[in-house]
Amino acid sequence: MTDDPVQSLKPGSLLAAMRRRNPLVQNITNFVAMNIAANVMLAAGASPAMVHSPEEAGEFAAIASALTINIGTISPDFFEGMKTAAKAAGEAGKPWVLDPVAHFATSYRRSAVAELLALKPTVIRGNASEIIALAGEHASGQGVDAGDSVASAEAAAKALALRHGCVVAVTGERDFVTDGQRSVQVLGGSKLMPKVTALGCSLTCIVGAFVATAPDSPFEATVAALALFAAAGELAGREAQAPGSFAVRFLDLLAEVTPDAVDAVARVVPV
Amino acid sequence: MTDDPVQSLKPGSLLAAMRRRNPLVQNITNFVAMNIAANVMLAAGASPAMVHSPEEAGEFAAIASALTINIGTISPDFFEGMKTAAKAAGEAGKPWVLDPVAHFATSYRRSAVAELLALKPTVIRGNASEIIALAGEHASGQGVDAGDSVASAEAAAKALALRHGCVVAVTGERDFVTDGQRSVQVLGGSKLMPKVTALGCSLTCIVGAFVATAPDSPFEATVAALALFAAAGELAGREAQAPGSFAVRFLDLLAEVTPDAVDAVARVVPV
Amino acid sequence: MTDDPVQSLKPGSLLAAMRRRNPLVQNITNFVAMNIAANVMLAAGASPAMVHSPEEAGEFAAIASALTINIGTISPDFFEGMKTAAKAAGEAGKPWVLDPVAHFATSYRRSAVAELLALKPTVIRGNASEIIALAGEHASGQGVDAGDSVASAEAAAKALALRHGCVVAVTGERDFVTDGQRSVQVLGGSKLMPKVTALGCSLTCIVGAFVATAPDSPFEATVAALALFAAAGELAGREAQAPGSFAVRFLDLLAEVTPDAVDAVARVVPV
Repeated sequence: MTDDPVQSLKPGSLLAAMRRRNPLVQNITNFVAMNIAANVMLAAGASPAMVHSPEEAGEFAAIASALTINIGTISPDFFEGMKTAAKAAGEAGKPWVLDPVAHFATSYRRSAVAELLALKPTVIRGNASEIIALAGEHASGQGVDAGDSVASAEAAAKALALRHGCVVAVTGERDFVTDGQRSVQVLGGSKLMPKVTALGCSLTCIVGAFVATAPDSPFEATVAALALFAAAGELAGREAQAPGSFAVRFLDLLAEVTPDAVDAVARVVPV
Repeated sequence: MTDDPVQSLKPGSLLAAMRRRNPLVQNITNFVAMNIAANVMLAAGASPAMVHSPEEAGEFAAIASALTINIGTISPDFFEGMKTAAKAAGEAGKPWVLDPVAHFATSYRRSAVAELLALKPTVIRGNASEIIALAGEHASGQGVDAGDSVASAEAAAKALALRHGCVVAVTGERDFVTDGQRSVQVLGGSKLMPKVTALGCSLTCIVGAFVATAPDSPFEATVAALALFAAAGELAGREAQAPGSFAVRFLDLLAEVTPDAVDAVARVVPV
Repeated sequence: MTDDPVQSLKPGSLLAAMRRRNPLVQNITNFVAMNIAANVMLAAGASPAMVHSPEEAGEFAAIASALTINIGTISPDFFEGMKTAAKAAGEAGKPWVLDPVAHFATSYRRSAVAELLALKPTVIRGNASEIIALAGEHASGQGVDAGDSVASAEAAAKALALRHGCVVAVTGERDFVTDGQRSVQVLGGSKLMPKVTALGCSLTCIVGAFVATAPDSPFEATVAALALFAAAGELAGREAQAPGSFAVRFLDLLAEVTPDAVDAVARVVPV
């Protein structure tokens, strides 16, 4: 570590800090993502807990260091758990991350996301279509896949960040992170990443691990989380040719990649 | 492609068409299958969406190109979502596929499957014990595994297809597909396939991707889906000796296998 | 096999018997574990069925040869299914295994586990913090991870076994099994095992497969289940360097490991 606060918030340094702290992160995520997201968290060095039932989600949010909420397979019971946990996190001053999966697809999702947004997430992570639609513009996603480019979502991301006072991350062929004032691109990854289900959902959980580590610097924490994925994804993509092998090597590399390798492989470019 | 409509419905041609179209398929499946089924769909070239809550399952069924329903871990909430989605698919003229997992095991499952059958699935895919029991005959399955041979289920499959006006696929050591008039065997695969959980459930989702691509030819679409699995399974089985490695290579091969390789490796035999 | 009843209950012999019998085991487990637990069961040679809905969980418990209950993502619906199934298993004389995941974390979990304990599990399997807390002592776990050593949980495990008349298994860096009278350590495994999510939950299901095979010898059955994991884990750990690859090889080895190799690699040490 260094005395320079900017230097100490470089992705590699934050990764080292996250691994030292091994933060307990509560994830209310979807049924497709639960296993891979927990494996991604463990490999990267965090401590995941999937706790969503309304009977205990709020009590647990006060114990965990951060919370992530993903609406991928939302139902009324899970929605109650999400709201209870987000409120408890807010009252306890814990950061939380919102993943508005395909929120534009049905009226049920749209209204659920509107309620969750009102509970003031610290970070929103989505694909381009999700972020564009969340900003109130016209998106062209179908189902859970993005139909828009990240570049076309940058203005929407900034508007959303300013409106809700949060960090917004748009992930895709290259990533974009903004807090409304500062913006960066994060470059790296592999074209095989969208061929493995729920890696975006898993990244949302990793953002939770980094904001748990640096709760006062959610912008830098989000950039570091995306840089970890970009580096591990790029290194895995150099070795694997197809999605099954890629997923295995990606998990390996989340554990094996060093802080220095993250800083060397992932490119963080101010824009 | 060719002008010959039969030629153009060969499994390899249908696989190429499916990959070009990248169909959005709604899958209401079980908790064991959700992750692997989504990975199978992405690897093969389809766009899966796991949407099951009664609050939105019907609305989404009108958006998706096909629907698949699997009762593996059915509960009242999921059952409501299944019925809502199947009705919406029917009204929108979208094909849907039923996977009656272990429907003979409990009275709850039996009555749920009877209600779903009344909603007129386009295709039914099951193991031999499931298809025999669904036709009203005595099966010897235990739990989710088949206790009967595919050969012993052929007559039941034909009767079921004629009774419900649908395609019936019996999968196992070799597969059998019938619409009551035409019947084929699909040969290939690997003895390791039953050692990986939920590959049958994932195949049901793949049938959904092919009937979304060729909704007017559900027999050919079902054969093509089974041929893709037979080819990728056989190729993966030549390289892997045990179930963990097999699952990884099988996902790779679903992405890597060419249409020509499917036609060369999977044997489709009229019977 | 041998006429010596002690010899015939060695882990390797019990593994051979389990594979011959291919027991049907009902698992009410958490959403994170469902897929990997089913794959672990299939690889090892058992027949898993994930059946939890209250509408059918009791009916199915009378069909299955054993039941396992894991509260990892418990909710009221699942809790009803658990109680119904545990009662039915008890009435049918079928053994059942309890996995009290993080039961100390919230009041909802604490009260749920108290009710399940009253239904008399045959075996309890947990990490050190879970077992210490279950015995009423002060544990230092956070979330789902153990904050205590297995050694520090031995007295609690014995007290718990005597109080409830059951077998207690504490798993971790080395395992400890006791029925209150007899106690053994099971040595083996790999430091990568805690880096793969839900392997402990999957082990609970494997204990179910072994108690289904030797219902009159739950102590020996539990030791054999742990020995299988210790042997497969140790062998996989010799080949894999990181969690993604380890998980794949571990599944392979659960299928490939011979009874003799289990007896040679896993060390069972009376204490």
